Amino acid sequence: MLPLEVLKAAGSEITCAHGTGQSVMEMSHRSRDFIKIIERAEALLREILSVPEDYTVLFLQGGAMLQFSMVPLNLGAVNAGEARKKATYIDTGVWAGKAAEEAKKYVDVRIGASSKDKNYSYIPAPPPPQNEDSFYHICLNNTIFGTVWNELPETGAVPLVSDASSCLLSEPLDVRRFGLIYAGAQKNLGPAGCTLVIIRSELLGGAPDWTPVMLRYDIHAKEKSLFNTPPCWSIYIMSLVFEWILKLGGLPEMAKRNREKAAALYEALENSPVFRPTAEKQFRSLMNVPFVAREENAEKRAAIESRFLNEAAAAGLINLAGHRLAGGLRASIYNAMPIEGVAALVKFIKNFDPK
Amino acid sequence: MLPLEVLKAAGSEITCAHGTGQSVMEMSHRSRDFIKIIERAEALLREILSVPEDYTVLFLQGGAMLQFSMVPLNLGAVNAGEARKKATYIDTGVWAGKAAEEAKKYVDVRIGASSKDKNYSYIPAPPPPQNEDSFYHICLNNTIFGTVWNELPETGAVPLVSDASSCLLSEPLDVRRFGLIYAGAQKNLGPAGCTLVIIRSELLGGAPDWTPVMLRYDIHAKEKSLFNTPPCWSIYIMSLVFEWILKLGGLPEMAKRNREKAAALYEALENSPVFRPTAEKQFRSLMNVPFVAREENAEKRAAIESRFLNEAAAAGLINLAGHRLAGGLRASIYNAMPIEGVAALVKFIKNFDPK
Repeated sequence: MLPLEVLKAAGSEITCAHGTGQSVMEMSHRSRDFIKIIERAEALLREILSVPEDYTVLFLQGGAMLQFSMVPLNLGAVNAGEARKKATYIDTGVWAGKAAEEAKKYVDVRIGASSKDKNYSYIPAPPPPQNEDSFYHICLNNTIFGTVWNELPETGAVPLVSDASSCLLSEPLDVRRFGLIYAGAQKNLGPAGCTLVIIRSELLGGAPDWTPVMLRYDIHAKEKSLFNTPPCWSIYIMSLVFEWILKLGGLPEMAKRNREKAAALYEALENSPVFRPTAEKQFRSLMNVPFVAREENAEKRAAIESRFLNEAAAAGLINLAGHRLAGGLRASIYNAMPIEGVAALVKFIKNFDPK
Repeated sequence: MLPLEVLKAAGSEITCAHGTGQSVMEMSHRSRDFIKIIERAEALLREILSVPEDYTVLFLQGGAMLQFSMVPLNLGAVNAGEARKKATYIDTGVWAGKAAEEAKKYVDVRIGASSKDKNYSYIPAPPPPQNEDSFYHICLNNTIFGTVWNELPETGAVPLVSDASSCLLSEPLDVRRFGLIYAGAQKNLGPAGCTLVIIRSELLGGAPDWTPVMLRYDIHAKEKSLFNTPPCWSIYIMSLVFEWILKLGGLPEMAKRNREKAAALYEALENSPVFRPTAEKQFRSLMNVPFVAREENAEKRAAIESRFLNEAAAAGLINLAGHRLAGGLRASIYNAMPIEGVAALVKFIKNFDPK
């Protein structure tokens, strides 16, 4: 979901952006007009998130999935003949697990902790890093299971790396705690097609010789994300979203709104005789609220959830199915979801008759 | 440049696509609404280009630059301990050269022929492939130097691979002649952020184990380009561009228009006392027309070209500087450039006073 005023602003200048006589979709990425757009996007992001000067911001492609390869390639992989390096991954769900699987191609992965035993309904206690770790990877907000790291692992000198795809810009975040943060744009930042990477600049430059050139952070950093044609339109929409966030009051205001929305929804689920939230209380995400019917018979439960989805859709409440890998139900209440949308869902849950 | 009616159509439904209540920028890539869009884009492309049934169409990210790695990784790279494979690359300009450089990481590259001796102003005679070649790579249209392969190399059983970024859909093309065709979207297909790959399906599946998962054609093929979130908006705009091409009469009509435009421009340059085209006659691109001032003194030539650029821009004729790696002047006259745009440039060239 994107803010309606962002979509309207983009629509109003779709054939002619800022009086340039052309659409952002037509601009050369090396034109002054586009460079102004990408520089403004970066400046706004740095302001919103208080990105320190010694961190580099990159606008890349390929989604978080490509970061699953780029992180170990740039921070841990070695040239032929050299001893493989180590890294710690914490397994808090499907995406955290996929990131670890991919990393095994390039580094020796230790799964430091996992919450798989309880269907990823909590965040496990993170062990300290191994001395030899080249980095330590977590998934900050787990989109599918609705959990979030409220306290970050202490990793000392080992760079903490986080997939923040589904929570970046939903509340304040201390960038200094991380060596690298990455996020696919399509949750809180803008349309699909762009991936944001924020990396402590001293970590640039470690990729081995055989790394595909497009997968090297140092190359993109040197060229200010213009090494090749970037996803210009996505970056432009992101800059409009960043403006919208700042105008509303930045991350403190986003956090306030998101806390209100999540609290209302969790309260309704806690008190519902029909449904219950699945994530443990102290680890609950502000962005993704998975829930299931309380009914214990699997067949009956599936029937209730299916009817809920159908009746909700008929009432204009869409995208409430759980992820295909988790089942059940899930409300994603990203920044652009207004409190009214959550209120409508709360009312619908309260009035839902399981028959 | 994109067709104005495509931009207008996209603008008219930017907040609500086809009555779905949401923007294409907000759609889940696994929603029925988006799957309809990507399936339609593929069907239209297959119709326009007569893509045979045994070829797979992929909508990827990362531009042609990422293909410079993906092609050798998928068609030639080997697992640790296996003997490196070979490939032939023909060096017809900056992009062809970069593709060959990148491939050296993964295969033993032979530069079969080069036109560097005459500043890439022609297409060299291609040698037959080596028996051991895993593939044979050309750049079909050379954007910077304005040359095009009018006759394809005969490569027998060795798959011919081509970067077609700057000419795909500008005229009919016999897909059967190729093992693989790739093209960044941002010339004739749509906005930056999507890369089209057309691959003979039997070539899928050759990537070694250590290939980054997002760089494997077979994975994207199996998941119908929905392995991860694709650049939904770019694919949607591409589908509108494909509709526009079909409505105008498909590739025969595109070719007719492009030939007319290029002929008018080359004629003006041939007859100009001030300027001359740089590409040799039999290899001239229909898409990119590089030219320089005839003045032989380098300083005076630069002054004339600089004044031309300034006066042209003042007259509304923009983007006429040569590529930063080539200098001089260049008119790119892709599908969406109307004949009137070329006529205006021709008139401006004829009337330009070098002083």
